[in-house]
Order: sequence, then C-alpha cells, then structure tokens
Amino acid sequence: MEAVGDIAVIGLAVMGQNLILNMNDHGFTVVAYNRTVSKVDDFLANEAKGTRVIGAHSLQEMAALLKKPRRVMLMVKAGKPVDEFIEQLLGILEPGDIIIDGGNSLFEDTIRRTKYVESKGLLYIGTGVSGGEEGARRGPSIMPGGSPAAWPHVKPIFQAIAAKVTDPQTGAEEPCCDWVGEGGAGHYVKMTHNGIEYGDMQLICEAYHIMKDGLGMTPDEMHEVFKEWNEGELKSYLIEITRDILAKKDDDGQPLVDKILDTAGQKGTGKWTVISSQELGIPITLIAEAVYSRCVSAMKDQRVEASKVFPPSNSRFAGDRKRWIDDIRKALYASKIISYAQGYMLMRAAAEHYGWNLNYGGIALMWRGGCIIRSVFLGEIKKAFDKNPNLTNLLLDPFFKKAIKSCTRSWRKVVSMAVRKGIPVPALSTALAFFDGFRSARLPANLLQAQRDYFGAHTYERVDAPRGQFFHTNWTGHGGRVASGTYTV
Amino acid sequence: MEAVGDIAVIGLAVMGQNLILNMNDHGFTVVAYNRTVSKVDDFLANEAKGTRVIGAHSLQEMAALLKKPRRVMLMVKAGKPVDEFIEQLLGILEPGDIIIDGGNSLFEDTIRRTKYVESKGLLYIGTGVSGGEEGARRGPSIMPGGSPAAWPHVKPIFQAIAAKVTDPQTGAEEPCCDWVGEGGAGHYVKMTHNGIEYGDMQLICEAYHIMKDGLGMTPDEMHEVFKEWNEGELKSYLIEITRDILAKKDDDGQPLVDKILDTAGQKGTGKWTVISSQELGIPITLIAEAVYSRCVSAMKDQRVEASKVFPPSNSRFAGDRKRWIDDIRKALYASKIISYAQGYMLMRAAAEHYGWNLNYGGIALMWRGGCIIRSVFLGEIKKAFDKNPNLTNLLLDPFFKKAIKSCTRSWRKVVSMAVRKGIPVPALSTALAFFDGFRSARLPANLLQAQRDYFGAHTYERVDAPRGQFFHTNWTGHGGRVASGTYTV
Repeated sequence: MEAVGDIAVIGLAVMGQNLILNMNDHGFTVVAYNRTVSKVDDFLANEAKGTRVIGAHSLQEMAALLKKPRRVMLMVKAGKPVDEFIEQLLGILEPGDIIIDGGNSLFEDTIRRTKYVESKGLLYIGTGVSGGEEGARRGPSIMPGGSPAAWPHVKPIFQAIAAKVTDPQTGAEEPCCDWVGEGGAGHYVKMTHNGIEYGDMQLICEAYHIMKDGLGMTPDEMHEVFKEWNEGELKSYLIEITRDILAKKDDDGQPLVDKILDTAGQKGTGKWTVISSQELGIPITLIAEAVYSRCVSAMKDQRVEASKVFPPSNSRFAGDRKRWIDDIRKALYASKIISYAQGYMLMRAAAEHYGWNLNYGGIALMWRGGCIIRSVFLGEIKKAFDKNPNLTNLLLDPFFKKAIKSCTRSWRKVVSMAVRKGIPVPALSTALAFFDGFRSARLPANLLQAQRDYFGAHTYERVDAPRGQFFHTNWTGHGGRVASGTYTV
Repeated sequence: MEAVGDIAVIGLAVMGQNLILNMNDHGFTVVAYNRTVSKVDDFLANEAKGTRVIGAHSLQEMAALLKKPRRVMLMVKAGKPVDEFIEQLLGILEPGDIIIDGGNSLFEDTIRRTKYVESKGLLYIGTGVSGGEEGARRGPSIMPGGSPAAWPHVKPIFQAIAAKVTDPQTGAEEPCCDWVGEGGAGHYVKMTHNGIEYGDMQLICEAYHIMKDGLGMTPDEMHEVFKEWNEGELKSYLIEITRDILAKKDDDGQPLVDKILDTAGQKGTGKWTVISSQELGIPITLIAEAVYSRCVSAMKDQRVEASKVFPPSNSRFAGDRKRWIDDIRKALYASKIISYAQGYMLMRAAAEHYGWNLNYGGIALMWRGGCIIRSVFLGEIKKAFDKNPNLTNLLLDPFFKKAIKSCTRSWRKVVSMAVRKGIPVPALSTALAFFDGFRSARLPANLLQAQRDYFGAHTYERVDAPRGQFFHTNWTGHGGRVASGTYTV
C-alpha cells in the first residue's frame, strides 16, 4: 500500500462527504473512512465516483495510506465519538501526526483533548467549519485552533478549500481561514459564530413575523422585500436564503414555508454560547433570547392551548406599509449590530479568561465568507478593527455609531408597535434594551445594591467614594454588626 | 464532656450566627465552631452572650458535645470549603450522623455529596436557607433535600426555626420548611428561588427607573408609591424594603439611594439558574435578563463612555402621573406572574430530568414566608396548585389568567413608552415578549426551520403531516441526497 494520501477524513455524513469532494477539487488526495464501512463503498460508487478519493476499510488501512506527518480529520458527531476515535487513533498513529476535529465540539473538550493528544506526542487541532453542506462543498469558513505546531501542516489544505473573500482594506483575495489560537480557541470562535447565527436567524424571523401578521404580507411579497434587502447593508447569506425560501412553492403550488411546522430544534452550540456568557458575566442578551425563542417554539401544544385562553387581538400595524418595511429593515440592522457587539464582547472576555490572543479583525474576515453568517456587514467589522485593533466595543466605532444613530428612530417605532400589537419580538426588543442600558451612565442598580445590602449585608460602593471601598448600612436599626463580606470561616 | 448539643453549626459569618441564635431561641442547644477559632470566643462574648450556645475549639470537641445521631450544619462558603469540611467530618463523625450544608451550593454538587456521604454510611442534607440575615435570625424559609432518612432527625429543629405562615387554604399555621426531595432537590429549589429573586429585584428596579427618569419622581415620592403598592397584590418583602430604602436618608439628609453606585454584584445562583435552564431547554427569559442586567450595570466605565456617544434624549413620559404609576404597577405585576410561571416551568422540567417528586404547592408555601421573595402572591400560587396539582403552566390557572388579562393594556403601554423614551426595561419587555410568544399558536419558527434545512439539511416537520415525520427539501436544486439526520459514522 502506497502512502499517497494527503489527509484522511473519518465520517461520511453530508459535511464529511462534501469536505472530501472539496479537498479533491483542490488537488488533494483524500482517504475516506467511515465506521459503518459499507458507507465508504457507497460513497465511492456515488458522490466520489471518478475522483481521486481513496476508500479505507479500517483505520489501519487508512493510516497506511497517509503521507507523514499524517493528517486525520474527524467529521463525526461531537461528544463521545470524538473521544473514542482519538483513543483508537492514538493506538495507530505516530508522534508528530495530527488529529483534527472538524465537528461542533464544546471548546472545553477541545482544550482537554489538545492537552491529552499533545501529552502523547501527537498534535491536535479543533476547528470550526461553517457553511453547512453547501459551504463544505464549495468553500467553508474554517476556524482552527489547538496545537500551534500543527498549523503549518494543515494550512495549505484548509486555506485551499476555504471560501475566499476580498479584504475590504487591502483589496487582496483572502481565504476565510486563519489560525485562531491555542487550545479551544477555534471551537470557541465557532461557538460564538453559531450563537450569532442563532441571533441573526431569530431577527429575520421577527422581521418576517411583523411583515406577515403586522403588515399582512404574503410570502411572495416578503420575497420581494428580502430580495431588496439583499442589495443593501443587510446583504448576507441568511437574507439571501430567506429570499429564496419565501419564493419556494410546495408541490401544490402554495408557498412551502407555510407548510412547515413552527417548532425549531437546536443543536447545542447556541446553548453553549449562553452558558459561557453566564460563566464570564457577559450580557449577550440577543443570543440568549434567540435560544429561548427556539425553546418557546418547541412548546407547541401549550402554545396552542394558551392561544385559546389569551386569543390574539388585532395585530395589524396602521400606516404606510412601505414605510414600515423600511423601519423594520432599520430595526433589524441596528439589532444585528448589537448582537455582533455582544458577540465580540464575549470573545474578548473569553480570550482574557483562557489566555488566547485573538485577532478580532481576522475573525471578522474568516466569517466574511463561507459561513452561515457571511455578510458585507462583517467587512465593516473587519475595517473597524483594522482602524482600531484595541476597540473595546463595536458600538463605539464611528461607522457603527453612525449606523445605530440612523436607525434608532425606526427601531423604537417598530418595537413599540409590536409590543402594542402583541407580536413577540424578543430579539429586537432585548437589543434595544441592551443599547439603552449600555448608553446609560446611571442605571437603577443603585437600588438593587441597596436591596442586597438591606437583606444580605452584601455592602455597596458609593458615587462619592473611591471604587473598591465598600459600605454597609444598618437599614433596619436592629441588624447585626457583621457584614456579609466576612462570610468566611 | 457531656453530649448536650442538639446541633452544631460550623461557620460564624452573619448567616451562621443568626441561625444559631434563632435555634437557641427555640430551646435548642447549639454548638458553635469556626475555622478561625478566635471568632468562636468573640461570638460567645458578644452576640451569643447569655445564651445556651456552647463554643467548640476543634471539630473533635464539637463532635463530643453532640447528641447522637449528630447533626452538623455547615454555614460556610459554597464550593471547596464544603468538600473540605465533609472530608474532615467523615473522619470524626460516625455512621448515622448527619451532615447538613446550609450554604448556596450548586445542586449538582449536592447530588454528588449526598451520594458520597451516604456511601460512607452517614446521611446528608443540602438545604436552601433564604431570608438574609434578618430571616436567619427571626425565621427563614428552609428548603431541605438529600437523604430522606435524615429528615425526621432534622425536621423538629428546622420547622421550629423556620418562618410561619397561614396556609391560604386551610387557615392553619404552617412552617416555611418542608422536605423538598432527594439528592439536590433542596438546593435546586433554592437556586430557582434565587433566580426568581433576581427577577423580582430587576422588575422593581425598572419600575423605579421609569418613575425616576420617565416621571421625574423623587425618592420620597417613590417611597409613597411603594408604600401604597405594599398594601395590594404586590405586597411582599422586596416591595417593603424598597419602600424603606427610598425613605432612608444619608448623614447629610439627602436620600441614601442616590449615593449608592449603580454597579450590581452577583453571587452565582442567578447564573446557575440560567445555565440549568439552558441545559433543560426552558425559557426563563426574565431571570436571564435580570442576570445580564447586573452584568451591564457592572460595565460602568464603558457605559459612561457610551452615554457621551449616544446621549439620552428627553425621557419624560407625557400624561397623567397617577395614571402612569398605576400602569407601571400593572406592568410589574403581570411581569412578575410571567417570571414565576417560568420558574415553575423550570422546576417541573428539572424534577422530570433528575427524578424528583416535587410538591409545587408546598414550594409556594415554603416561599410564602421567611425568604426574600415572600409575598401574598405566593399564597395565590399555593392556591392554584391546591386546586389543580397537575397544572402544567401557572398562566393557565384561572386566577392568574384573569390577573394577566387585567394588566395587559397597561403592560403594553408602559413597555412601549419606555422603548420610545429610551429607558431600558429588559425584564418588563422580555416578559411581554414571552407572553406574546407563549400565546401564539403559530410562531415564525417555520421560517427558521426552513433556513436550517436549507443550509444544514436539518429537516423539518410539516403542519399537514404527523409529528415526528421529518422532511428535507433540496432547496437549491443542486444539494446532495444526504440529509443531516444521517450525521453519524
């Protein structure tokens, strides 16, 4: 058996298959393996027919077919299967070989696995791959992290198969793939990407909901709106596919979207993003509302019951439809800016906490093409970080500041009307609440601190004393002399 | 040394001290111990002077002073200190003895510790204790879970020191303490209590914020409002202390609340509630927004900077102040109902997931007095579960249904005006968004499912096909024949 394979891919579900075909297109010789071995033959006889792809019927055979250092990419279900394959591969591969996990693994698992595989003398990469089946086939966004020493060996393949975009600053064509950082950095950035994806999708759904119930529009009419939106600052993959979805007809000629059940699934990465944000204390309110909205959608039976108890009233928006559509677009755009600002706040906090040196502009460029959230908008984020690499918050960048300001009036108008008409807009409204909180020099948390000191002796700081100096008031006149700050033994 | 002690308490911070004095008041002989032993003598010479409390200067001495089965209650910082004391106590106590953790431990730790301590032949209780320092001293709400065999030995002490309330149904005086369930059930219910407490406090802060900035009211004027609110359906400990806080003057005669810095801390239990809700897929949106609001409040420097970039406009509400105050009260009340409905949804899901048999009415009764969220409102929840123990959602109970309906108009009015005037009301608005989502027979998640199927072949269900039957559309006409459901190897 000759070692002719540039890389092996384990796992022949849709993402794995398409990545293999993509690598093949770019001149790499790929060894394909699948635990259920019949799928290997099936793949070679169908999708991979006429390609350079080689099938392996065992991990040993796969290893023997690979050039050294061997590159083995797992495209299997996140969780236990990854650990199981790592264990098997460690028994077969050699020091210096590289194991790559291209699934949606939890970044904490990737931190652990990187250490573990490195302790065995091999190298590890945990990489985000985004773009769905189309992206995997034609050019995904790839976000690798893990063992820095592995990167030079993987870079030529990954950058070849990744999507390409034009750098908005330099005009150069750049791959949507670059080294993200050590340990779990790649999967963390992919996780954040997915969280933002949840948010973008929810925002589009809310816009659709308002147009449908508030403006009484048909899918065909909404198709035209999204078509127009896809020409402007909202131009993005998700707006584009929404445009196409709204035009899609079922076999009976009726809009297919109306036939689809309104209960959304979720695969974990949105949830992980929220959990991480809670751990780090970063308010990514929009993503959280987007995840919860999916949970609400899943409560279909209770919702149907509740709709009878609390029947909807007239939800129609008064006024000019064209104007409302413009207002909705601006509300969506402003909320999207908030969501990305929150996502970047989260990555900044994670980088600090986990000791990663993240390149924020580079991340925007990686997301600029290939992935699900790709958009012209991300080019603006790249520009913002190019102009000011130390930008603490996207909202403070001149471009986004101006964009937000130009949308604020419409944003408030849309949210307040939806609130009055009973159309749920959790993402649009939490974005606005966050914005109004963020721009408040003074929030009502002084009262909250008083409450906490009142019932729990938690102490507070004062506006007229240096930060870090804590006070306790004996509010009732009969409390003890012991503050909660001494809650230690 | 004679074994005269009924129970030992380890940890002499404010909560531990007050619990000891409370137990002493009820005729129990308490052995007090603290790792820094000088605190024991200090406590005996001051707060515990003239009581029956006995000081122990070592764990061995403490154990020798206790009747059997020994009852040892830890009132130490949650986390490692609890494990360390358990380890030490296991070396000193005997089979059948009972270790009680009265701190705010993570319920998953309590599940683990219960198993561990039981494996050593001892019994374990993890109990929530709520009520702050005042509650601990005069009568807290106590929520014990763990080893059922331990409960009879602890019940007389706990029910004696707990707050007492009148059962709204039977008229009998009941302690705010009853057995919650096995393993981590007690700490889970306490955690949910704390999450709800975060929500209640945030709602009050938003009402205060609107009155302050929207209606231009002074603390004295707001004091009068909260005083009035505390006579009606909002009557509760948190409204009561808010009333008192607003009247409290600083040394210079100015309202103290205005001198307090608006950056709120959080101690973990709110965060845990949100994390658990994400794990279980339960939309407790109001608690999540409350936790995030504290995070936003902590971003003080960025907020001050942002307030210059996005200066506030006129935030004054037009119209009759008295009427607005009434509207705000109704908005607060409706949002509070939503928050409790969400909290109960969470406990129901946790009970199912972890195999606990929770008594939902009993929990309301435990929270009815003693704890921070105590209120007349919880009596209504108790009644709702008494009437219908299988109530799936609080919002579907006739009392709450009617209450919500009577508030809806004001609620929408307040949120929409706050949105227009730029006053952040994340909790009030997410409650409304949840309500409107919950009562929507049809949400826009059909579009979301179409998007997921479009880019990720995630499949969808149809309105005209049985649930559980999944469809995949080849939206682009050039996708593969492999759906993501087969994403296995």
